[in-house]
Amino acid sequence: MENWLKKRVLLSPNKIAIQAGNTKLTFKEVSDRVAVLTARLANKSRKGMRVALLTNNTIDGYLMILSLQQLGCEIVFLNKRLSHEELQYQLEDAAVSLLIYDESLLHEEFVGIESLTFNQIESLEESRDFQLVSEFNDDEVTTIMYTSGTTGKPKGVQQSFKNHFYSAISSALNLGLTDKDNWLCAVPIFHISGLSIIMRGLIYGMTVTLMDKFDAEKVTFLLKESSVSTMSVVPTMLQQLLEIFPQEGYNSNFRCFLLGGGPIDKVTLEQCQQRNIPVIQSYGMTETASQVIALNFEDAENKIGSVGKTLFSVELKLAHDGEVLLKAPNITPGYLNNPEKNQEVFENGWFKTGDIGYLDEDGFLYLKGRKGDMIISGGENIFPHEVEESYLKLTGVKDIVVAGITDKKWGQVPVAFVILERKLSQQELISYGREHLAHYKVPVRFYQVMSYPQTASGKVKRRELIQIKEYQKNLIK
Amino acid sequence: MENWLKKRVLLSPNKIAIQAGNTKLTFKEVSDRVAVLTARLANKSRKGMRVALLTNNTIDGYLMILSLQQLGCEIVFLNKRLSHEELQYQLEDAAVSLLIYDESLLHEEFVGIESLTFNQIESLEESRDFQLVSEFNDDEVTTIMYTSGTTGKPKGVQQSFKNHFYSAISSALNLGLTDKDNWLCAVPIFHISGLSIIMRGLIYGMTVTLMDKFDAEKVTFLLKESSVSTMSVVPTMLQQLLEIFPQEGYNSNFRCFLLGGGPIDKVTLEQCQQRNIPVIQSYGMTETASQVIALNFEDAENKIGSVGKTLFSVELKLAHDGEVLLKAPNITPGYLNNPEKNQEVFENGWFKTGDIGYLDEDGFLYLKGRKGDMIISGGENIFPHEVEESYLKLTGVKDIVVAGITDKKWGQVPVAFVILERKLSQQELISYGREHLAHYKVPVRFYQVMSYPQTASGKVKRRELIQIKEYQKNLIK
Repeated sequence: MENWLKKRVLLSPNKIAIQAGNTKLTFKEVSDRVAVLTARLANKSRKGMRVALLTNNTIDGYLMILSLQQLGCEIVFLNKRLSHEELQYQLEDAAVSLLIYDESLLHEEFVGIESLTFNQIESLEESRDFQLVSEFNDDEVTTIMYTSGTTGKPKGVQQSFKNHFYSAISSALNLGLTDKDNWLCAVPIFHISGLSIIMRGLIYGMTVTLMDKFDAEKVTFLLKESSVSTMSVVPTMLQQLLEIFPQEGYNSNFRCFLLGGGPIDKVTLEQCQQRNIPVIQSYGMTETASQVIALNFEDAENKIGSVGKTLFSVELKLAHDGEVLLKAPNITPGYLNNPEKNQEVFENGWFKTGDIGYLDEDGFLYLKGRKGDMIISGGENIFPHEVEESYLKLTGVKDIVVAGITDKKWGQVPVAFVILERKLSQQELISYGREHLAHYKVPVRFYQVMSYPQTASGKVKRRELIQIKEYQKNLIK
Repeated sequence: MENWLKKRVLLSPNKIAIQAGNTKLTFKEVSDRVAVLTARLANKSRKGMRVALLTNNTIDGYLMILSLQQLGCEIVFLNKRLSHEELQYQLEDAAVSLLIYDESLLHEEFVGIESLTFNQIESLEESRDFQLVSEFNDDEVTTIMYTSGTTGKPKGVQQSFKNHFYSAISSALNLGLTDKDNWLCAVPIFHISGLSIIMRGLIYGMTVTLMDKFDAEKVTFLLKESSVSTMSVVPTMLQQLLEIFPQEGYNSNFRCFLLGGGPIDKVTLEQCQQRNIPVIQSYGMTETASQVIALNFEDAENKIGSVGKTLFSVELKLAHDGEVLLKAPNITPGYLNNPEKNQEVFENGWFKTGDIGYLDEDGFLYLKGRKGDMIISGGENIFPHEVEESYLKLTGVKDIVVAGITDKKWGQVPVAFVILERKLSQQELISYGREHLAHYKVPVRFYQVMSYPQTASGKVKRRELIQIKEYQKNLIK
């Protein structure tokens, strides 16, 4: 494949590539800045080297990504929410030789790793003797992102140029593509949700509007006053935006929200329908270089609860136990330094998502839960999600997490950790379950908690929960 | 890659896939018809078999293409304008085992090849025991088209699924893509210009409007009254359409013409600008599965004479002699049964187009002529095209073809074959050339002719011209 940035300078030099605040750069200007940056970085990095990047959603961070790509480095994206110790683990696991960071994000150096702040790079001398990559090779890894998952050590997900390319193409074949598209990125660029917007920008020749931190008021202003056409959101962002939805609506170029990070609730969906705001719900993960399955707006009402249909170039099949298997050119070549995990999740070219689901007669996918979370009790499968959904309808239950514990008689039985808004007795909770669920699905014990252990991206560490003694202290009477 | 038709039935079952006259079929309906057709064809054809197809631009022909693709056959497209003998050559060269044809197009059977008319297929029994292809393999050849070129025997150009896929994607990245797109196909589906529209339809989930024969009045009616957004045209079609351009303009969904088969002239371009009709000029060939280079409307005026810039995913470089070399996933895996030709045109993954050109400072390509047509005279290169362009400005010269003949002193010298509208003497013709061209470029002799030998697709057989004695009869006095 050709070098995307070079190609953009050829095809659309004067188009705005990136804008943030009052700064706007065309593809030609981006390329010129990248030329200077690469000359500075060339002293410290070269093709094939792994360079970690710790950045906010800033133009500097954007330019750094593009520059490292031009130098042929593998970029290890660091999550700014992680602890120093967690980051140290990732830097070591990836054998990173250089860390580049925004000075506002780090106040303590890492042991044994050369570091450069954005400012320090500014004052590096420009090398005259260095090579930029002439082509982007399909199978070459360009980015690495660690996913914490809910168990085990974080795993470095490798993403190749092909992964990003097909991800962008699949998305365009679903959402369409116009020369007026302008994608607002208020999700972190160190996550695939944000990075994929930047990659789409390069591949489509599309303007990306960068915002460092989601702010409903500021976003609404942009959606009204600028020419933003598309925006990636998670459910809470969408809800906040709907709360202050302007009477006059968004700008005429606005096309849709792309929703990740969980399904839309019925109330929110209805609000979007009333206001004529298309929301595309999407399913994807770091391992699939963003969305691979999407539920379009026109199907949302009839297919509530579904994650949608596989995008063009993505194939899906269900394993015997209902696990969702995917095959697509956007799926990671594998986890870094993790042959066991790779052997576990890949089989004959199929990637095991770990999600259990089923397809309806129209090919829409519905998820029941994570394979690892599934509780097998007396030979019956219990999906915590189903039990939780049921209990969330009981007044007084603010939140609930269900997990399995080993049991001599049944193998496993479900127990529940609840956050209560009003007093509910053990007996009331169990009775409610027996009314609404098959008996084997009803948690055998309910514990009261105040919060849950979570990963950096906000996923509840379900299996960790049952191992923490503290959480099992308050058995509800 | 997944099976495109299956995917379309999953993603957009109720969208109109194809329409012709009053018939409209959704992707689901197309798939249902294909299911019946494949069951009938399964008795006669199976995976890997080469099946020739001789059809007009009809829904029957369209369904036949899709059915043969589902059966995994390689489809050899026959040009209905060819003679029986020419077709016989292609059928034999491709070792075709079955010929399927529209009864209106053929009245004489071919020796040694089983044939079935569309009607005969209707009455075949439906097989119950057959397999459709589950996936479309990237590198599998799905279609073969013979190109006559201007010299030698016709060559069978193989086109893989990957070729068609990337061709569609490159085009979408240039033209954009909306869910209201509707592409009018009035160019033959047995040519890549037409077939590529059908493939785009499948890949995009786009409506294709099929017209059997270009008719300016009918096309104008569709452009006004239907929702056609895009249309592939050659220069003469565009000129005819402009002549009867309706005052009220085309329908509001109309986006652009995609022009192939030669550059636009200045007058036509100005007419398009005045009428606000975007024209994308494109360069491509059977070997590149349609367009690989395009000149967008906004550049047309400043870059008159250029064929444009390489589309996304297409790389270009110029050889020492200026020959245009291309590397792209849409380039043919090679000519059928023609190792010598393949060795000649492929070098380290680059495809030699045979066109000589140069790039301007903005990366726009300009073509000077065909490599084989270049005349080397006393060490100087002469491109017939340049000489011809110059003479076409001389009143009285209706058409002119310049070719090289061997010469003892200079190696080669140019001679010209002209069609005159008024009397011009040998002396006048030569004087005109000396005024406007370097002396070595001026043809040494002018012959008067009434027409030129042409290939089926209308290309002048330049090199044949100079070998035909008859054409050298009328030396102008």
